[in-house]
Amino acid sequence: MLSIQVTGKRLKKQNREVTKFISSLASDKRISKHVLMINMAHVLALHKSGYISKEDTVSILRFLNSFKLSDELDEDIHYMLERHAIDKLGIKVAGQMNLGKSRNDQVATAIRMELRDTLIRTMEQILSFQDTIIRLSRKYVGTIIPGYTHMQRAQPVLLSYHLLSYFDSLSRTFDRFVEIIKRVNMSPMGSAALAGTTIGLDRRIIADFLGFEGIVRNGIDSVSSRDFAVESIASAILLSLDLSRLSEEIIIWSTEEFRFVELPDEMAATSSIMPQKKNPVVSEIVRARSSFPLSSLVSSFSIIKCLPYSYNLDLQEVTPLLWTALDTVIDSLRMTSKLMDELRFRQDFEKELSEGYTCAAFLAEYLSTKKGINFRVSHAVVGELVSKSQQRGISFRKAAEELLSEIARKYTGKRIILSGKEIGRILNPKEALRMIKTEGGCNPDKMEYELKLREGIIEKQRKTLSLIKSRIKTKLSHLEREVSGFVSE
Amino acid sequence: MLSIQVTGKRLKKQNREVTKFISSLASDKRISKHVLMINMAHVLALHKSGYISKEDTVSILRFLNSFKLSDELDEDIHYMLERHAIDKLGIKVAGQMNLGKSRNDQVATAIRMELRDTLIRTMEQILSFQDTIIRLSRKYVGTIIPGYTHMQRAQPVLLSYHLLSYFDSLSRTFDRFVEIIKRVNMSPMGSAALAGTTIGLDRRIIADFLGFEGIVRNGIDSVSSRDFAVESIASAILLSLDLSRLSEEIIIWSTEEFRFVELPDEMAATSSIMPQKKNPVVSEIVRARSSFPLSSLVSSFSIIKCLPYSYNLDLQEVTPLLWTALDTVIDSLRMTSKLMDELRFRQDFEKELSEGYTCAAFLAEYLSTKKGINFRVSHAVVGELVSKSQQRGISFRKAAEELLSEIARKYTGKRIILSGKEIGRILNPKEALRMIKTEGGCNPDKMEYELKLREGIIEKQRKTLSLIKSRIKTKLSHLEREVSGFVSE
Amino acid sequence: MLSIQVTGKRLKKQNREVTKFISSLASDKRISKHVLMINMAHVLALHKSGYISKEDTVSILRFLNSFKLSDELDEDIHYMLERHAIDKLGIKVAGQMNLGKSRNDQVATAIRMELRDTLIRTMEQILSFQDTIIRLSRKYVGTIIPGYTHMQRAQPVLLSYHLLSYFDSLSRTFDRFVEIIKRVNMSPMGSAALAGTTIGLDRRIIADFLGFEGIVRNGIDSVSSRDFAVESIASAILLSLDLSRLSEEIIIWSTEEFRFVELPDEMAATSSIMPQKKNPVVSEIVRARSSFPLSSLVSSFSIIKCLPYSYNLDLQEVTPLLWTALDTVIDSLRMTSKLMDELRFRQDFEKELSEGYTCAAFLAEYLSTKKGINFRVSHAVVGELVSKSQQRGISFRKAAEELLSEIARKYTGKRIILSGKEIGRILNPKEALRMIKTEGGCNPDKMEYELKLREGIIEKQRKTLSLIKSRIKTKLSHLEREVSGFVSE
Amino acid sequence: MLSIQVTGKRLKKQNREVTKFISSLASDKRISKHVLMINMAHVLALHKSGYISKEDTVSILRFLNSFKLSDELDEDIHYMLERHAIDKLGIKVAGQMNLGKSRNDQVATAIRMELRDTLIRTMEQILSFQDTIIRLSRKYVGTIIPGYTHMQRAQPVLLSYHLLSYFDSLSRTFDRFVEIIKRVNMSPMGSAALAGTTIGLDRRIIADFLGFEGIVRNGIDSVSSRDFAVESIASAILLSLDLSRLSEEIIIWSTEEFRFVELPDEMAATSSIMPQKKNPVVSEIVRARSSFPLSSLVSSFSIIKCLPYSYNLDLQEVTPLLWTALDTVIDSLRMTSKLMDELRFRQDFEKELSEGYTCAAFLAEYLSTKKGINFRVSHAVVGELVSKSQQRGISFRKAAEELLSEIARKYTGKRIILSGKEIGRILNPKEALRMIKTEGGCNPDKMEYELKLREGIIEKQRKTLSLIKSRIKTKLSHLEREVSGFVSE
Repeated sequence: MLSIQVTGKRLKKQNREVTKFISSLASDKRISKHVLMINMAHVLALHKSGYISKEDTVSILRFLNSFKLSDELDEDIHYMLERHAIDKLGIKVAGQMNLGKSRNDQVATAIRMELRDTLIRTMEQILSFQDTIIRLSRKYVGTIIPGYTHMQRAQPVLLSYHLLSYFDSLSRTFDRFVEIIKRVNMSPMGSAALAGTTIGLDRRIIADFLGFEGIVRNGIDSVSSRDFAVESIASAILLSLDLSRLSEEIIIWSTEEFRFVELPDEMAATSSIMPQKKNPVVSEIVRARSSFPLSSLVSSFSIIKCLPYSYNLDLQEVTPLLWTALDTVIDSLRMTSKLMDELRFRQDFEKELSEGYTCAAFLAEYLSTKKGINFRVSHAVVGELVSKSQQRGISFRKAAEELLSEIARKYTGKRIILSGKEIGRILNPKEALRMIKTEGGCNPDKMEYELKLREGIIEKQRKTLSLIKSRIKTKLSHLEREVSGFVSE
Repeated sequence: MLSIQVTGKRLKKQNREVTKFISSLASDKRISKHVLMINMAHVLALHKSGYISKEDTVSILRFLNSFKLSDELDEDIHYMLERHAIDKLGIKVAGQMNLGKSRNDQVATAIRMELRDTLIRTMEQILSFQDTIIRLSRKYVGTIIPGYTHMQRAQPVLLSYHLLSYFDSLSRTFDRFVEIIKRVNMSPMGSAALAGTTIGLDRRIIADFLGFEGIVRNGIDSVSSRDFAVESIASAILLSLDLSRLSEEIIIWSTEEFRFVELPDEMAATSSIMPQKKNPVVSEIVRARSSFPLSSLVSSFSIIKCLPYSYNLDLQEVTPLLWTALDTVIDSLRMTSKLMDELRFRQDFEKELSEGYTCAAFLAEYLSTKKGINFRVSHAVVGELVSKSQQRGISFRKAAEELLSEIARKYTGKRIILSGKEIGRILNPKEALRMIKTEGGCNPDKMEYELKLREGIIEKQRKTLSLIKSRIKTKLSHLEREVSGFVSE
Repeated sequence: MLSIQVTGKRLKKQNREVTKFISSLASDKRISKHVLMINMAHVLALHKSGYISKEDTVSILRFLNSFKLSDELDEDIHYMLERHAIDKLGIKVAGQMNLGKSRNDQVATAIRMELRDTLIRTMEQILSFQDTIIRLSRKYVGTIIPGYTHMQRAQPVLLSYHLLSYFDSLSRTFDRFVEIIKRVNMSPMGSAALAGTTIGLDRRIIADFLGFEGIVRNGIDSVSSRDFAVESIASAILLSLDLSRLSEEIIIWSTEEFRFVELPDEMAATSSIMPQKKNPVVSEIVRARSSFPLSSLVSSFSIIKCLPYSYNLDLQEVTPLLWTALDTVIDSLRMTSKLMDELRFRQDFEKELSEGYTCAAFLAEYLSTKKGINFRVSHAVVGELVSKSQQRGISFRKAAEELLSEIARKYTGKRIILSGKEIGRILNPKEALRMIKTEGGCNPDKMEYELKLREGIIEKQRKTLSLIKSRIKTKLSHLEREVSGFVSE
Repeated sequence: MLSIQVTGKRLKKQNREVTKFISSLASDKRISKHVLMINMAHVLALHKSGYISKEDTVSILRFLNSFKLSDELDEDIHYMLERHAIDKLGIKVAGQMNLGKSRNDQVATAIRMELRDTLIRTMEQILSFQDTIIRLSRKYVGTIIPGYTHMQRAQPVLLSYHLLSYFDSLSRTFDRFVEIIKRVNMSPMGSAALAGTTIGLDRRIIADFLGFEGIVRNGIDSVSSRDFAVESIASAILLSLDLSRLSEEIIIWSTEEFRFVELPDEMAATSSIMPQKKNPVVSEIVRARSSFPLSSLVSSFSIIKCLPYSYNLDLQEVTPLLWTALDTVIDSLRMTSKLMDELRFRQDFEKELSEGYTCAAFLAEYLSTKKGINFRVSHAVVGELVSKSQQRGISFRKAAEELLSEIARKYTGKRIILSGKEIGRILNPKEALRMIKTEGGCNPDKMEYELKLREGIIEKQRKTLSLIKSRIKTKLSHLEREVSGFVSE
């Protein structure tokens, strides 16, 4: 009988430099545990269908259980695995392992399994980040900051209200991942090279063993599609936008000019010569790396765009881009969350804002709702009031007390009087915010309610994630138990 | 009383070149009908809360009902609208229109309404494209083509099976749009500039009037977030990938060398000097434009990435990018669908493939499952058979008939015999495909079932879309009825 | 004799919806004058080689001289032009126009001619922007602002020094365009469809008539390459980076917190209710649109990446992307230049910075160079000095006067004494900057020299551009004269 | 005297996780040798200006000569280097090393030095690739292949002519790198943190020691600009486009359907079961990775776009993107060049194309130039001839012999006769190509001239590169000699 070293023969022929150039082994490390599970599930299915004897099944499972990726050069993990199996078990036993499967369906399956895990890690980081936001919002529940449009001060807002805008955006991305994971968690196994196989395999059993919720029905779709990767990257981009904008804010807030926030020493780069200087390095790096998911998408798109069906090796290059995109946001979420927890916010804005113009719009609305002045007119009245206060160099509050009646009469012909107390209340940021009536608005009296609402959302999200994790775990434990049963014999 | 021309005063001051440079009017045309509805709903809500008299409400609604965008220069539609209202109705009436709203929440609301409509149009095009795929698959239900990996012939597949891989990918994108539209269809109105308003407005009523399913709770989130735009663009990218890959295939298939398909004269560019030449221009343009959604995403990301909260004018530039992304895929889906319907596929591949090597893998699996040869060995046996057939210059089928036994004995030591009839069946593409056992596999006997399955999916998708549309329509008709009630008095 | 309506026949066959979908006419408007010149030059060359009679040459040139693009539907300008020529002149005369040329070489030629003009316009805008920088630098030649690293105040710099960093960057991009225009300004004409033609045409004469400096030698390269477009876009990206960063600075500088600069009323969007608020809308739009060249590049790359040689229709979609990229930077340069000219910079930083820590590093260097303290030690000394001043709540200057000797002795064991006058000079921003010794450094005494240097550079750049323009103009005037000679007969 | 451990103190404070997150050490390995040279040149300059004694200079240079990066955690190489220097030499000696320099100017300088080397390596690969093209063109100098437009056969071309189109494109990119390297090779040293230094340093001497051609004059420009990186990446993108398009061609050419080329066994992935199948894996990987420079650009742009001056840590993340872009094209050029050298092209196209329609356009031109038929008419005549040959199922050549006269008479009313020999010559690809008259056209008789021309270009490019390299080498050897002089004392 001839000695058969299928993959060995191939490797002798292929130029080593070529093998090195095209090898996916560096990236395969990350999916190696999934590749082993796939092989286990497949061997069990082959055994169930009578293609492999019990004895051989035991041998192969034992081999798989102890296999470690070596540093040898090879095209990929699949070739290396079979080569080692043949070396160790002989071709008679190992030769059946690949009956009814192909590298094409295996690699798609392994990427989906690893992506599933990575998405779960991302979702856990989102939850943890949202916890931080709530914690910070509670800590600074009454703190007022200026709110901006066009980076110009517009009106006072609550810091907690500002932070909740990030919370809500993150919740939407959490939901996206819940939806994506459903599409990711479908098994390509049984699609073989591109169209299924004549081997009698129950795709559902294999899918179940591997923690999937179902199968990718069409074989060409199974091996050629990477939409699940692209949409995962796209959601990482959405996370990146939140992270980058928040980092931009932290950097601006920690300038000497804005002084909203003081960075913790241990998370900044200080200068020995200027101890007051705390470079916001964590936020700078988060901001810079926020572009990585985007460039993963650009490359992935460019790679996939020109590919006729079915599998082309180009697809191999998409995988590392996927991990870069998600790992970047996981790390950035973790570090930003850590940083947020240590930020010390300035708490004396209330007084400063009482003197300025940021409550002008509240005054205009007040004149409209309480004093019966048409809104566009009350708007004009307050506008002139601001002007006058600037011309005379007096505070807006003083101007309101002294000039409002006169200006209002000029515009409306009517006598409008506001008491000093009334004006004081309207121009006091917190009091003014208390007048906000719209649902979800920035009213200090409603913040407790708003925070409770978000705590409820976190709770719901946490349950959803737990369910996803436990379903996968349960399914994988079936595989583990089955394998143990064989191996321990 | 003073004459107040709020926005007019502003415009006299702003340099006309500046106004032109920053104006969004060109892009506002697309959202103008939504802006009018928003104003109607808002005025009704103000009336309900007692801020506007019935008479004034009637006047304003009549004005809105007949308003048309003019060609005058202005910053945006919101300013132009109020300016015209004041001109026409006087400040006393028109001056209350903007009580409790801002350009920030209005523009976010209008974009969401137009996006909702555009997403629905995209989903309709997907459905129509999937209809085409089913129609084409039924028309060519038994047609065999070579399946490829690495652009090298791998094994025969059914054309309909190949087409269904696109179907399934499109279904996933349809599902994505269903999920996205839920997040899009939430109302920012009532968020005002960034934090809500002291005006007593029921955000739920306004949202209902405008066809929304709920409200974007946080005001800063309402006016600063564009994640709904970015995720819509991202799904357009996924559609683009399908369209580009299919176009690439059509272009390759219609080369003189591949000759899979003949293009319809009326959808190709022919050359008067070479009538046999039909340039696949539709597919070339679809392929080229498939990159437009990606560049929309790149620009959108770059724009949003650096923006601290809340509204910055930069966001205005995201909107046209969003329309470009979706309009491109809508047009490309429509034209490609039209083209697909007219393609004439070659139908004589079955014979050609019977002679070649594309069924070699089937033979290996057959030896493994029916003749008890270990798979890696049967693989080697067939490998040598292919080699020998090439060396001797005989067809693979002939080689199998003459040499298989001998080679098999060399590798296994056993006597393996396949009858000519057996070999003929295995190497006949259609017969070979009939042996495929795995669920969802490319087995001609199962195609009817697979097609039925997809017809069921189309049905389900169509119902989902109908429901979305009818819910919006019903809500909008409430607004229309209410407005009519006032206007007709 | 048969009537021949070559392109007419084609159009009847092609579906109108298809023609509309693939038509480049909208974009062809921009290159129409170049297409006409190309036809003129080509016809003249055909006449010189004896392929067209004098009489016919006159007729065709007259036709070309008066041709206007119509609104009819057609694939492109080339078809429309020949169709009209045949209609007007009859096939006997018009039928020779396209001897020896193809749409492929014509379109590549016309794009290069229009790109040449557009690059020149871009370079003119750069020059004009650099003029503005010099004007502004002279106006504020002594003005001090804080210089930043990590958005933290680092040390005082001169505003003019800051502005010159943009100047130098723009000069490099100017140089890039000079280099690019050399590669752009080569003629593809004579390459015909892809490989040249059997018609005896002197490519050099045609190139000369059209203002080119030479020919693109290889025909496949001529019709398939778009590297000249991609590198033009890439340089627009570099311009965009300067524009975006400068806009970012203007936006930050005009915040209430930084107050470096006051925007001119007529170039900001003011709010009627908060007159102090000036939204920096021009800079916001410039910043947003700075991403357009990048997305042009992404799309162009994705389009070209998959194209085998030679011409594919996909290339048609690159052209509008090229114009978008360059038009965007031309407009943004113009508007930003206009804005810069009107900025009013704050001029009272000198005093503010005298009290703070921004000159701390100067003090450390002083101790090192004048008082013989090892640099790392002097660094530590000043570090402790800053610390102490903060702890004691005294100004850095006061701390230096009171504590420096003591701290220096602690670190060095030596007696180090600085007079109050010495300290005052070191901690005075302008005095401190005067100590800067390195070439090109921010020394107020050297600013005149630095400005002169840049004026010289502008002069040199202006001459280079003049030369480029006049060479093209001279060549084109030859064509014009030649055409006039024929037409006027 | 106090013990001073400046950087050590800092590190104790900074959280290790933070340091790890922001550390650039992984990427600093690549620039470490340049950082050491920078320190040497700087120390020598300090010595020349009298800031460091000869003895200390010797000690520091010896330390630098033997320094190796350790695996310890640190922010970056600059901190690590000074920390080690202080440990080893004591603060008294090591403390002067950083007098007059900053991490900001050092890192910009080191990146420029490494980029200079990497650009040179890229240019060497381009030259070597162009050598391969010439070698291959000579080997197949007479080989005819079909030329394509829209992937439809258009006319015969010479393989060598096709290859030269890549040659010319590569020459343009070579020229770009020559231009870029001039801008890269300017020294930021002496700019210190952002504005120069009070230390008397001759920037020109330091620049010279480090192989630069001049200095980056403005300090803010020096430390904040990364245009040199972006334009290098942009040129890598242009290289990538050539590489991707060529790979696309090789993949298509090696399909069973096109069969233009046979891949070498050792550079393909063969399948043991289908030995005829040779997966073009090298070209697939090159094609996929061609998108890497683009995504480097997208990320770099996004990072830089939002940064106010001067240095922000974000810039650190640009550096690895730059190396990825260039390393990818260097590797891909090398592997593709290797592959090209082993390709075996099919040589029997001449006969096949004689029978088909690819010479139809030559016939039309022939009728126009030799038989006096107006071109649009001769075009129509040949068009009908092609049609008829298809209808009758006879070869184009046979149709020309039998039907041309008749059709020509129908269109022109004249008697036109072509001999069989004449027709045979026109429809023979090689003979037809010989009729091409335009300069640079695909005429077999001119190929030797065209090849010589390109050999001349290679020669010129090689000299340019040699000059660049030798200038740098000479300058660096001055530094080396100077250092040796001190160290060996």
